Amino acid sequence: MEEQQPKPFVVGLDLGGTNSVFGIVNQRGEILATSSIKTQAYKNVDDFVKAGVECLLPIIEEAGGIKQIKAMGIGAPNANYYKGTVEYAPNLSWAHETVVPLAQMFSDKLGIPVGITNDANAAAIGEMQYGAARGMKNFVMLTLGTGVGSGIVINGQLVYGCDGFAGELGHVTMVRENGRTCGCGRTGCLEAYCSATGVARTAREYLTVSTEDSLLRKLDPEKITSLDVSIAASKGDALAKRVYEFTGKMLGDACADFAAFCSPEAFIFFGGLTKAGDLIMKPIEEEYNKHVLNIFRGKAKFLVSTLDDAGAAVLGASAIGWDL
Amino acid sequence: MEEQQPKPFVVGLDLGGTNSVFGIVNQRGEILATSSIKTQAYKNVDDFVKAGVECLLPIIEEAGGIKQIKAMGIGAPNANYYKGTVEYAPNLSWAHETVVPLAQMFSDKLGIPVGITNDANAAAIGEMQYGAARGMKNFVMLTLGTGVGSGIVINGQLVYGCDGFAGELGHVTMVRENGRTCGCGRTGCLEAYCSATGVARTAREYLTVSTEDSLLRKLDPEKITSLDVSIAASKGDALAKRVYEFTGKMLGDACADFAAFCSPEAFIFFGGLTKAGDLIMKPIEEEYNKHVLNIFRGKAKFLVSTLDDAGAAVLGASAIGWDL
Repeated sequence: MEEQQPKPFVVGLDLGGTNSVFGIVNQRGEILATSSIKTQAYKNVDDFVKAGVECLLPIIEEAGGIKQIKAMGIGAPNANYYKGTVEYAPNLSWAHETVVPLAQMFSDKLGIPVGITNDANAAAIGEMQYGAARGMKNFVMLTLGTGVGSGIVINGQLVYGCDGFAGELGHVTMVRENGRTCGCGRTGCLEAYCSATGVARTAREYLTVSTEDSLLRKLDPEKITSLDVSIAASKGDALAKRVYEFTGKMLGDACADFAAFCSPEAFIFFGGLTKAGDLIMKPIEEEYNKHVLNIFRGKAKFLVSTLDDAGAAVLGASAIGWDL
Repeated sequence: MEEQQPKPFVVGLDLGGTNSVFGIVNQRGEILATSSIKTQAYKNVDDFVKAGVECLLPIIEEAGGIKQIKAMGIGAPNANYYKGTVEYAPNLSWAHETVVPLAQMFSDKLGIPVGITNDANAAAIGEMQYGAARGMKNFVMLTLGTGVGSGIVINGQLVYGCDGFAGELGHVTMVRENGRTCGCGRTGCLEAYCSATGVARTAREYLTVSTEDSLLRKLDPEKITSLDVSIAASKGDALAKRVYEFTGKMLGDACADFAAFCSPEAFIFFGGLTKAGDLIMKPIEEEYNKHVLNIFRGKAKFLVSTLDDAGAAVLGASAIGWDL
C-alpha cells in the first residue's frame, strides 16, 4: 500500500563547473538536505556518476530511502533535455569532447526517472514550481551571470524547440555593426553587453573614453567586476550609474523584441546583476515600455527571482523531477 | 446514429478589408464551395453577420446541411483568439472603434462552435493542417505582404501569449539607429524593410543614392511596387537584384534571432514576395546559416508555403475549426 502514496521528494543536482550539489527537495520547494562533490575530480564520467551516487545515497536514506523519491532532475551546462545528454561542454573535463548520456547513467544506478536540462531552463522551471512564476503560463526567465541565459515558458511548457537547444536569448544580436565580440564567436550578442562580464567591459570602455572622475578609477581597470560597478553606483558614482543604465536599456530593448515573439505575462531576472536592484531594473522596465509595440505597453511585469540564491540552482534542477 | 459520425467539413471565413470569403473545407484541405460578400457594405456588425450567414447557408446546404459541419474558423485583422473578438481594427468600418464579439455572433446564428484568429496565425495553422508544416511541432510562419505578419508554433500549439497578441515578428527592431518609420509608429521594424512596401522603398532609396542604370528608372519612382522590382530582377537588373538580396539578408538575420528563441524545424514564407523565388529565398538561407549561433547552423528548413494562393486564407481560417 505504501508505494501507492505519492512520493514526497525529488532530487535536484546542480552540476556546475566546480561543484556538483545534490539536494532532497519537497513539494513546497524546501531543501531538506544537501551533499556535494567536486565536478572535475574524476577522470571520466563513470567515476563521476559513481562518486555522485555514493555522495547522494546517505541523504536519500535520511529522507526515508529511495522509495520516497519520485525522480531526479539535473541542471547542467550544454544539456539536451530531449536526449538526456550533456554534449561537448567546454567546461567539463569528462564531457568536453563527447556526448554523455548522464540522465540514463544516474537512472540506471538509482532506479528512478532522471531528467536533465540546462541551467537557465532549470531556473525557469524552478521559478514556475516554487518561485515568482507560480501560476504563470507565459513568461521569460533571464539569468544575468557570467553569461546571459534564458528559459522561456509558453502555454505552461518550457520551450525546447526542434533540437532541445531553444532559449538562447543571450545570443540575439543587439548591435549589428561593430558589435563586441562574444564568447560564441559572433559579434553584437546581448550577452556581450548585459552579462556580468559585459557590465565590467562597459565600465572599462566608459573609463577609457572620458576623463570623468569616478570611484572606479581607484581600481586596476583590468580587474574591475560588475560588483565593483554596483558598489560604486550605490555610492552615487555617476559613471557607474550610467553603466547600469546602459545595460538596463539594452535589456529593455531586447525584452521589447521578446514580447513581439511571445507576449509574456512577466520577465523574471535572476543572477548577480539583479543585486543592483532599481539601478538595473528601472531602466529595463522604462525602456521596455517606451519602446515596445503599443498593444504590449504596460502589460508585462518585471520581477526578480524569489528563489534563495544558494539553493536556486538545486531547486530549479529538482523541479524537472516533478514532471517526469 | 448519423450524428455520432465525425462531421466531415468545417467552414473557413477569410475576412479581409475588401471581401469576406466563406469556404466549405474537408479534412484533406479541399475547398468544396465558396461564396462571398463585401466586407464593408454594411453599416454595423449585426448587418454584416446577417448577410454573411445568408450568403453561407446555401453552400452549407450543398454540403449536406449544418449537421455535416464541425465548426467554423475565422481569420481576421486584429482578432483575439482568447476572447473571440475583433478589436479596434483600423481597416474595418464596423469594428474600428470598438470590440466586436464576432465568433459568438456567428456561433449564435449557426449553432456550431466558431473560433477566430488573425490572418498570419490562421496561415500557420493552415500550413500545419494541410500544407508545408504537416507533421511539424515547431515552426515559424512569416507572411510577406503589405506588412510582415507571423504565426509561431511551439510544441504543436500556436503561440498566443498572455493576451492573445503574441507573434508580431514584423515588429522586432532590426535597425536601432536612424531606422525607417514603421506603420506601428515606431522605427526600424522588420516590416519597414521586408514587406512588399519595404521592398519598393528600398528600391527607391537605391535609385536615389546612385546613378546606376536600372530598368526601374523607366518607372515613376513613387509608383514602383515590389512586383516591378521582382520583374526587373528576373531580367537580370543588378540594382533590383541587390534590393532582393538586401531584403533576404535582413530576413535571414531576423530568423537567426528567432532561432535563438525557439529553434524551429522550419521557417515557412507566404505572400507576394515569395514569388521572387531564389532571388529572396537564397539570401535568407545563406545569411541565416552564416549568422546563426553554431548549434543551430544548417538545421532549419526554409520553405515556401504549399497552399494555393487563392484558397490559402480560407484554408487557414478553416483549420482553426478542426481544433474547436
